[in-house]
Amino acid sequence: MTVKAIVFDAYGTLFDIQSVAAVTDEAYPGYGEVITQIWRLKQLEYTWLRSLMGRYADFWAITQESLAYTLDGLGLDHDRSLFDRIMDKYCHLELYPDAKQALTALKNYRLAILSNGSQQMLDDVVRNSGLASILEAVISVDSRKIFKPSPEVYELIQTELGVGPHEVLFVSSNAFDVCGAKNYGLKVTWVERVTAQALKREIGGNVAVRPATMFKALRMRMEPFGFDADFRVNSLAELPLAVAKAG
Amino acid sequence: MTVKAIVFDAYGTLFDIQSVAAVTDEAYPGYGEVITQIWRLKQLEYTWLRSLMGRYADFWAITQESLAYTLDGLGLDHDRSLFDRIMDKYCHLELYPDAKQALTALKNYRLAILSNGSQQMLDDVVRNSGLASILEAVISVDSRKIFKPSPEVYELIQTELGVGPHEVLFVSSNAFDVCGAKNYGLKVTWVERVTAQALKREIGGNVAVRPATMFKALRMRMEPFGFDADFRVNSLAELPLAVAKAG
Repeated sequence: MTVKAIVFDAYGTLFDIQSVAAVTDEAYPGYGEVITQIWRLKQLEYTWLRSLMGRYADFWAITQESLAYTLDGLGLDHDRSLFDRIMDKYCHLELYPDAKQALTALKNYRLAILSNGSQQMLDDVVRNSGLASILEAVISVDSRKIFKPSPEVYELIQTELGVGPHEVLFVSSNAFDVCGAKNYGLKVTWVERVTAQALKREIGGNVAVRPATMFKALRMRMEPFGFDADFRVNSLAELPLAVAKAG
Repeated sequence: MTVKAIVFDAYGTLFDIQSVAAVTDEAYPGYGEVITQIWRLKQLEYTWLRSLMGRYADFWAITQESLAYTLDGLGLDHDRSLFDRIMDKYCHLELYPDAKQALTALKNYRLAILSNGSQQMLDDVVRNSGLASILEAVISVDSRKIFKPSPEVYELIQTELGVGPHEVLFVSSNAFDVCGAKNYGLKVTWVERVTAQALKREIGGNVAVRPATMFKALRMRMEPFGFDADFRVNSLAELPLAVAKAG
């Protein structure tokens, strides 16, 4: 493998989207978990639905739409300042605990992000998390007016970094993103944060399940589209060794 | 309103996709509800993801893929005959109890289905439910190799029935489908089967929620894309009167 650039998905891969639960639960005690999960699930849906309708809106607008859907659907009142306070967390998401160390260990490669996020929200969260100096480029899909997993989006890596698909290792924990990147022709590492065994134990045979468990069941296993990841790690901490092994 | 044709969405609007729970729970006692919900949520996701990747597969294949994802994700073993038995329910879905009477009351209009389903699975479920003689046409998106809510799909009504968008009333309980049809330019009735109030009561402030409740929260409220339905009913039983009033 002649990898020159390692390109990361942002939300759910480097940045823990579950970390919004701190603000959603503070705003609506007892509802934090269900808000957090529905918000994220609808956010992704809206990227796909708007792309398919030919009605692109940027990821900040979509993140607002999906939060509005979530609060309205749950019958939770909100005013502008509360809404904005919750939204602001998207500019201050926590990094996964092993993210910075993994990126630092890979600093001999060209490192970048390719994300659905708008340029502004990506720049904000990258700066606020202290990753700005480690990353060569933060690439937003916004210039293409379509979202992952459209092949048009992954092409931006070549356009922006000037490297061919075979010189890129793409890293994502989002299975649909793994499939999209493979479909375009990149080498891909899937960060498999939830194994099938762990999920099975968590669901058990329970009649009711926690919204966070439902989220895992919906979003954290591989989609069976016939695109297998080239590499699989269980956390970002394993990535440097996996890259070294792959040569 | 000079409506000539009333065109229905199939799955979730005329046919109760929740009626698969009878077979999923028989096959996997205690897991019927969670299988049913994840299966349907992933089925829709896959229509969007495959459309966006430019990797169309017909709805029968997608329904198989989403069932496989669901069972594998939950760690549930399956052999070919069990899998096929569950899939077969998609050709024998129950009608909503008020569907046939509503369609019969509207028989002075040209009546049709426009659905994501493949032609074969639609023809099967229409015949098995006794709707074949009531419907003039059963239109599958399959000829366009893309799924709802792409505008290309809604154009099939004009192609197949020879009526203009202003002469069509489209009826769907799926909010993304309502938005897609409005985006294309049809008049649309939304069958709002779950109100915000009912959903709020059902969710309460519970830590764990039933998968069916999570499904309702994710799929049964209007998407905030700025496309409002022209008419709203709470059940198909209300449709004939609503159509008569709209003139």
